[in-house]
Amino acid sequence: MNNTFLLSSETAKNLYEFAKNLPIIDYHNHLSVNDICEDTRYFDVYKLWVMPDPYKHRAMRMCGVPEKYITGDATDREKFKKWCKVFPDLLGNPLYVWSKMELETIFNISEMPNGENADKIYDMCNEYLKNNEVTPKSILKKFNAEFICPCMSLTDGVEVFEKDLNVSPSLRGDDVVNPTIEFVKKLENITNIKINDLRDFEKAILKRLEVFAKCGCVFSDHALDNGFEFYSDDGKNNERFSAKLSGKAVEEEKLSSYILEFLGNCYAKYGFVMQLHIGAERYTSSVLREKVGAQGGFAGIGNSVDVKTLVKFLDTLDKKKERLPKTVLFTLNPADNALISVLSGSYSKDGVKGLISQGPAWWWCDHKQGIKEMLANNAVYGLLSNFVGMTTDSRSFLSFVRHDYFRRTLCDFLGEKFEKNELLCTYEELSNIVYKMCYENAKNLTGGNKNGF
Amino acid sequence: MNNTFLLSSETAKNLYEFAKNLPIIDYHNHLSVNDICEDTRYFDVYKLWVMPDPYKHRAMRMCGVPEKYITGDATDREKFKKWCKVFPDLLGNPLYVWSKMELETIFNISEMPNGENADKIYDMCNEYLKNNEVTPKSILKKFNAEFICPCMSLTDGVEVFEKDLNVSPSLRGDDVVNPTIEFVKKLENITNIKINDLRDFEKAILKRLEVFAKCGCVFSDHALDNGFEFYSDDGKNNERFSAKLSGKAVEEEKLSSYILEFLGNCYAKYGFVMQLHIGAERYTSSVLREKVGAQGGFAGIGNSVDVKTLVKFLDTLDKKKERLPKTVLFTLNPADNALISVLSGSYSKDGVKGLISQGPAWWWCDHKQGIKEMLANNAVYGLLSNFVGMTTDSRSFLSFVRHDYFRRTLCDFLGEKFEKNELLCTYEELSNIVYKMCYENAKNLTGGNKNGF
Amino acid sequence: MNNTFLLSSETAKNLYEFAKNLPIIDYHNHLSVNDICEDTRYFDVYKLWVMPDPYKHRAMRMCGVPEKYITGDATDREKFKKWCKVFPDLLGNPLYVWSKMELETIFNISEMPNGENADKIYDMCNEYLKNNEVTPKSILKKFNAEFICPCMSLTDGVEVFEKDLNVSPSLRGDDVVNPTIEFVKKLENITNIKINDLRDFEKAILKRLEVFAKCGCVFSDHALDNGFEFYSDDGKNNERFSAKLSGKAVEEEKLSSYILEFLGNCYAKYGFVMQLHIGAERYTSSVLREKVGAQGGFAGIGNSVDVKTLVKFLDTLDKKKERLPKTVLFTLNPADNALISVLSGSYSKDGVKGLISQGPAWWWCDHKQGIKEMLANNAVYGLLSNFVGMTTDSRSFLSFVRHDYFRRTLCDFLGEKFEKNELLCTYEELSNIVYKMCYENAKNLTGGNKNGF
Repeated sequence: MNNTFLLSSETAKNLYEFAKNLPIIDYHNHLSVNDICEDTRYFDVYKLWVMPDPYKHRAMRMCGVPEKYITGDATDREKFKKWCKVFPDLLGNPLYVWSKMELETIFNISEMPNGENADKIYDMCNEYLKNNEVTPKSILKKFNAEFICPCMSLTDGVEVFEKDLNVSPSLRGDDVVNPTIEFVKKLENITNIKINDLRDFEKAILKRLEVFAKCGCVFSDHALDNGFEFYSDDGKNNERFSAKLSGKAVEEEKLSSYILEFLGNCYAKYGFVMQLHIGAERYTSSVLREKVGAQGGFAGIGNSVDVKTLVKFLDTLDKKKERLPKTVLFTLNPADNALISVLSGSYSKDGVKGLISQGPAWWWCDHKQGIKEMLANNAVYGLLSNFVGMTTDSRSFLSFVRHDYFRRTLCDFLGEKFEKNELLCTYEELSNIVYKMCYENAKNLTGGNKNGF
Repeated sequence: MNNTFLLSSETAKNLYEFAKNLPIIDYHNHLSVNDICEDTRYFDVYKLWVMPDPYKHRAMRMCGVPEKYITGDATDREKFKKWCKVFPDLLGNPLYVWSKMELETIFNISEMPNGENADKIYDMCNEYLKNNEVTPKSILKKFNAEFICPCMSLTDGVEVFEKDLNVSPSLRGDDVVNPTIEFVKKLENITNIKINDLRDFEKAILKRLEVFAKCGCVFSDHALDNGFEFYSDDGKNNERFSAKLSGKAVEEEKLSSYILEFLGNCYAKYGFVMQLHIGAERYTSSVLREKVGAQGGFAGIGNSVDVKTLVKFLDTLDKKKERLPKTVLFTLNPADNALISVLSGSYSKDGVKGLISQGPAWWWCDHKQGIKEMLANNAVYGLLSNFVGMTTDSRSFLSFVRHDYFRRTLCDFLGEKFEKNELLCTYEELSNIVYKMCYENAKNLTGGNKNGF
Repeated sequence: MNNTFLLSSETAKNLYEFAKNLPIIDYHNHLSVNDICEDTRYFDVYKLWVMPDPYKHRAMRMCGVPEKYITGDATDREKFKKWCKVFPDLLGNPLYVWSKMELETIFNISEMPNGENADKIYDMCNEYLKNNEVTPKSILKKFNAEFICPCMSLTDGVEVFEKDLNVSPSLRGDDVVNPTIEFVKKLENITNIKINDLRDFEKAILKRLEVFAKCGCVFSDHALDNGFEFYSDDGKNNERFSAKLSGKAVEEEKLSSYILEFLGNCYAKYGFVMQLHIGAERYTSSVLREKVGAQGGFAGIGNSVDVKTLVKFLDTLDKKKERLPKTVLFTLNPADNALISVLSGSYSKDGVKGLISQGPAWWWCDHKQGIKEMLANNAVYGLLSNFVGMTTDSRSFLSFVRHDYFRRTLCDFLGEKFEKNELLCTYEELSNIVYKMCYENAKNLTGGNKNGF
């Protein structure tokens, strides 16, 4: 990408010259742990570029591509060609520019795909993969990634990362909060704790959290989907848990609230950051859900989060002995940016800078517009200096181009304000905040010196 | 209007040179079918310009003009003068610039109205109308309108448009979904089907839909007002319908949901596009409602649509044999732009490009700010290439200036992004998307070559 | 501040040259009436600048400053130094620029505070206070304040302002609407009316409103917090009131709705403007609430106001004999800007310009972004010419810098649109609207010629 892309002022360009060289800390993503560990070489561009990216599947559906060519039984080449064919129709969508960045960064191809050049591009990419050893780790190295935190379940084998200086797990807590019988069995197996009731369940959780902590985990994550409600403990959750274990229907949301509260307190104790991903509406087309699975790229954006229930959850934690853990709030509904950002100032803990902060623009909001809205709101309702940094939240290794995209957007956002004389700060102060937001704040959370890939 | 109005970049100006000459397809409006058919000449500027436009009535009320001079018994000249007098106080409001565009396009008057020149402008306009044959069709011709779709009820005489190449009805389905005894009678009369129960009602609907289809109808429209809820069929709607026919109180929303679902399936079968106009709050001042009627220009904007209920409606249709019809979502609450746009990617149908898309900025949102917000959200959460085009949704023939206003805003929106090097596309690709958004997509929906007026 | 701050076009600069000299009317604030009357000299910068400003306390908490140094028992100098130390971390937040404006306007200090220069700045400021007589009134004079309306309770001694040409009370009605036994006692004492039931309560209210009117009061104010619901009178409120007086639990919201409606009608009768401050979520951290009190700066932003309930309240008043009072709607949730602004056109009263209007960006929204969003929405959904003007709503005398900040932002907002040729008006018309929005509209509400301070 050339140096004017997204950079519309001289200050933006200067800031970016500095920002572009900072290492990447990607503290929350859905990269395959298997792929990272095995570091297997890629030989097919479709499998690297299109298959693992639900954003691209969604775009193809919007253009009327039959499902056969998206997740069905067409060949890789056929699917790749359909993807290239819809490409010109994505003009204006972030996929259009991300895809160009991805092709250019990995394959040195600057041509835009379309229906005519699809075969040629497929062959060029695969030729590149034949002549160059492209693997997960080589890609991370190319992107100057220093530290990454793929999501893992409490029952996953995180021990593989115990000595890894560059990878630590980010705890995905959703299956803990909504425990199935199967999950409880897995937890029993991995902890050797027989789980008969809620107390046992808590003991097992704590045992695993110890292991996660030992393996460098400092981030946890929960999805508070559209309609989330937090219920105070009514003393009946042990009962509910036992009923659930024996396959009975229970008031799930009350039990979940209890477990979420329990985990929140644990996070405070272990010093884990609690990420709350707020506002997805994952139940849209049941036809697609059945055909392509829950992560198929068809989720929607939910209504505004109920502030009273969110605040009740945070306040319940805050009143406990361990108080609130460091909390990062992500919103999927951009109309909630102000409402979320302003909570940064609603709780405090002596000596903790940024106890609550807003996270980067998330999922469907991760594009220039969404990032600028998030930054603008974060600046005035929260504090930019408390921003924990960009993270991809992606399933695709190529999505690391979005760090570059984010940095350009950040530099453009600040550069414009600086040149309009809105900020009243010096260039040095400006460049200092860029450093914090792109690198230092995340580094401080994830700990000491890393080697990088 | 000169060529810098709303066009702030060279690219915008170039794009507009191309866009301004494209014919207009206005696929949803409230123009009087009578006026169109009779094509009666106008002799009074008040009756052409002010009387049929509730936006102007509203603005006069905001400026404290007594109702006598808005909808009361003052003379046309008196009312016209009050309108001119408030004009300077509209600075910054879209009415200010639209009104100027209207005066200039039809009457070649570029002077801005005010309290002083009101009489003079009134006389100049009426002099113009005396010397020039201004009729509904001549106005449509002046605006280069190629095809228009005025709203009609299922019981209206659409047959008048059967051979018309330039006009087809857009089905306004609200009275079908909330059927009164009177409406059912009308439907019986026009279909010669005796309606004793819900099955008969459905038969009669289908018979009329056949007629609408034969008369070129390809658009339907439903208002999902503030508080809309969709209920799944509980098997009791035949009962409810019969009870309603005999004048009893029933759970209206459940019956409405059933009929809406029935119609949705019909639309899919007949290939009608289903427009959903979401989020009006039509009950504000009951004093005004009583005095000036339901369409008096005092409606408000509702709260965010309940995503779960909207999605439930769409999903219910999608699971049926015919699947979803092509659906265009309009939101009156601009805070819902992202939430609405993103649904474009939540449903799919093999081979159908743009199964769900966001419609143009609607009603109170139809101004530069609202249009740009809609475009910006549509671009990143949906796809610009799926945009079905601008439509006036207006009761006034002069509102066709808003197509020009829209095109300027669109060209300005794209031009700025292009010059900031955000889009990474060529000028040709840019101009191609302008063509689609201003004309081609709507033309593809409304069918073959038209003559224009 | 130099003349480019926030002014990014030539037109903006020209407009500002005119706007900056207009007197200030601050029609709603929380300045201490005691401080105003006693006009005591300040000798310590901490007590003048940091102590009375909850925004600054909040920012310090966000930076992890221990509560001891915010509201605790540390010395003034220690607290001042902690404030200076966090200052560089506020970059991008309005506090950063406001604080600079405050320091510069009062103390002629243009240096930015930080950890290093904190002691020096503390000493410089106190030296200044030693050598210059700085009092509340001298500050108001410096800011060219012409008229101010501090909030007062119905039971406060407003008589002190009866002959004051520059100050009148703004009635804060929240304790009337939610009357405690203590409040009722106070009201009995000040009115000499024995309050046995709701009718007596109403009589006492009316007696005090007479006094307020005589003391120049033309503004009232109510907080409609997150979750506000309006209930129609069910005839049981006299019962509820009596029950409440005898300490029983009652349906508070129903009683409050009744009293609010009663007050609304009184305001219409007395010609008071009714300000509605909508959407605060005041219950966030109960730890902070207990430690530093309800006004400690930790409030959040609520969900969207329920339009149906707000409209029901307005409509209920509108149907009464006195109709609606002039009403100014403030929203704390910026996502509600359109929804609130558009209500400007939903009610009317013959001869009253601006019966309903949107107020300035409020509390957490009072910054360039929030002001511009408010202005943009007000322009297109309401009317700029009906804007009642900026007000600080602040507890700190130094917050009057925000009028300058507002004027710069307004001039920049209009200047940019003017230069982009969006407005189609002349410069004279533009400057006229600036005059109305900065001064004339508020002056018309607050009455004849004032002396200023």
